[in-house]
Amino acid sequence: MPFTPSTTPEAVRRVACIGAGVIGGGWVAHFLARGYDVTAWDPAADAEDKLRRLVSAAWPALEQLGLADGASPDRLTVAPTLAEAVADADFVQESAPEKLELKRALLAELAAAARPGVVIASSTSGYPMTDMQTTAADPSRLIVGHPFNPPYLIPLVEVVGGTHTDAAAVAWASRFYDVAGKSVITMDRELPGFIANRLQEALWREALHMVANGEATVEDIDASITEGPGLRWAFMGPCLTFALAGGEGGMAHMLDHFGPSLKSPWTRLEAPELDSALRDAMVDGCASAAGDRTYADLVAERDQGVIDVLRATGRLPRADRAGAPDPAVPGQRPHTPGSAAR
Amino acid sequence: MPFTPSTTPEAVRRVACIGAGVIGGGWVAHFLARGYDVTAWDPAADAEDKLRRLVSAAWPALEQLGLADGASPDRLTVAPTLAEAVADADFVQESAPEKLELKRALLAELAAAARPGVVIASSTSGYPMTDMQTTAADPSRLIVGHPFNPPYLIPLVEVVGGTHTDAAAVAWASRFYDVAGKSVITMDRELPGFIANRLQEALWREALHMVANGEATVEDIDASITEGPGLRWAFMGPCLTFALAGGEGGMAHMLDHFGPSLKSPWTRLEAPELDSALRDAMVDGCASAAGDRTYADLVAERDQGVIDVLRATGRLPRADRAGAPDPAVPGQRPHTPGSAAR
Repeated sequence: MPFTPSTTPEAVRRVACIGAGVIGGGWVAHFLARGYDVTAWDPAADAEDKLRRLVSAAWPALEQLGLADGASPDRLTVAPTLAEAVADADFVQESAPEKLELKRALLAELAAAARPGVVIASSTSGYPMTDMQTTAADPSRLIVGHPFNPPYLIPLVEVVGGTHTDAAAVAWASRFYDVAGKSVITMDRELPGFIANRLQEALWREALHMVANGEATVEDIDASITEGPGLRWAFMGPCLTFALAGGEGGMAHMLDHFGPSLKSPWTRLEAPELDSALRDAMVDGCASAAGDRTYADLVAERDQGVIDVLRATGRLPRADRAGAPDPAVPGQRPHTPGSAAR
Repeated sequence: MPFTPSTTPEAVRRVACIGAGVIGGGWVAHFLARGYDVTAWDPAADAEDKLRRLVSAAWPALEQLGLADGASPDRLTVAPTLAEAVADADFVQESAPEKLELKRALLAELAAAARPGVVIASSTSGYPMTDMQTTAADPSRLIVGHPFNPPYLIPLVEVVGGTHTDAAAVAWASRFYDVAGKSVITMDRELPGFIANRLQEALWREALHMVANGEATVEDIDASITEGPGLRWAFMGPCLTFALAGGEGGMAHMLDHFGPSLKSPWTRLEAPELDSALRDAMVDGCASAAGDRTYADLVAERDQGVIDVLRATGRLPRADRAGAPDPAVPGQRPHTPGSAAR
């Protein structure tokens, strides 16, 4: 069945959020802050109290982010039934527990209850829509809109449809999330775990292996990221970061020089064959990401970025205390060599 | 051979940096900024020019970080020979190219030339010291001190010895790096790739698989991190971050609820068996990391941290422009729903 939108992404006024837990409640807070009317529904008895507490707790943060004109927690309505929740909605975001059968039944119910031409998005963290849309009367408007926790602060949302989703519904949803202030990655094919979860799951599984083998502690693992690569990843992704590790030779030098380390037992994950096609894809991708920025430009950007992040996360001594030892500031402890010997 | 330090970590005044490329030069900049006398040696003909350019380029960033008393680029000496470079050094940092035979020969030469009781550290990104110290006359003072790029900005250094390293040398080096302003993880066993590289290598390999299969582009991969998990990892590691994903139930709820997803094909990396020992190790580790901070405390910290990082990395509208559309600020674009329809 072809998808014909009931309205434009720019004209959406009311969003229905189905499921009001940590993720669903986070979506409610985000849409309220962006100035939408939000109707929520959750079968749990104490759902409304918990939801309003979550929104109240998040609101000061949302005020710092900058509220849209007219944004208010008062524009949240908690509906007594699913049908009433979606009756007037221009967009539906489903955030039920991660159980396939539950998602299938719920999405079928939503597809039957929502107005024609309204896109219904699932917050699933990994199920392909093809597996979830099997029982829906009209699967053409069902898409995955996968957020990160908390949805009201982390910009990323991954958008992808299923076999029976109309490409027009995917395009409409990507535009809507963009208008609603999210940072959108639209995928042209289904991939279990999408993109970001595959990356963090690989890291997570390696971390679990290390803890299971007594090779590292939880504290070691968290510190190795927050004191290391995590400082760069807040503003420069792993590809461009590694391109800089290649010096002025960039990703080409990095792959040609460190390529062999892909075969070293640095993780339990087997590496792909670094053939010329993959090499060129990485090199060209980084070149396009760098645009007209030179190696020196990128190094300067990275350095300023790390300093800004260190300062933002309280790891730089305050100006008035520069020079004074500060054991609470790892990596930034001023020290006069030999002082202990003088 | 037992290790007897020539001086205390606090009394170190002169550091020798062997190899002055991207990493070695970064170490030079870091030690100069922390107020040490630094002697560098690199066999390349143009090494001194490149090194002094690197230090000059890094210095404004180091001034922002806060220089130690008396810190100056003028305290850098470039020695004509390796022997002269280490003759008066209280500590030696080797950052030669990542070639095992080269490292073996160089470390043996350094162990012969450095004064007795001086610790010699290798910046190797993955070779176990046991494999590198095979030909050294006195391997007891050879340790791995693995930095991240750039060493003058990223606090993390991973410290570990080899089979023939004296534990006292590992302890001395860990204390020295701490005094020198680094954030130290001391490992009690050798593990190829250490900790942080194993984690980022797992992520990197999964990223390469996705690009190789046409499942994601370099741009998608970088954006999925900088707009997603990377924002949290700048200040809260993957374990504590996932503990928050468990809501008030924390890591216990997260593992009990999402444990099955470890078996889902979200990455090419096989997951370890989530037995009760691993579950408890993760739960206890996160509980100890949280200390007396409640779930609400941690959520508030995370939220403020993400906001601070978004602001630090230029992804928040300036106060005077809050409410004004800013297409250049993904995830933070103020929007009045329905405005396009009015």
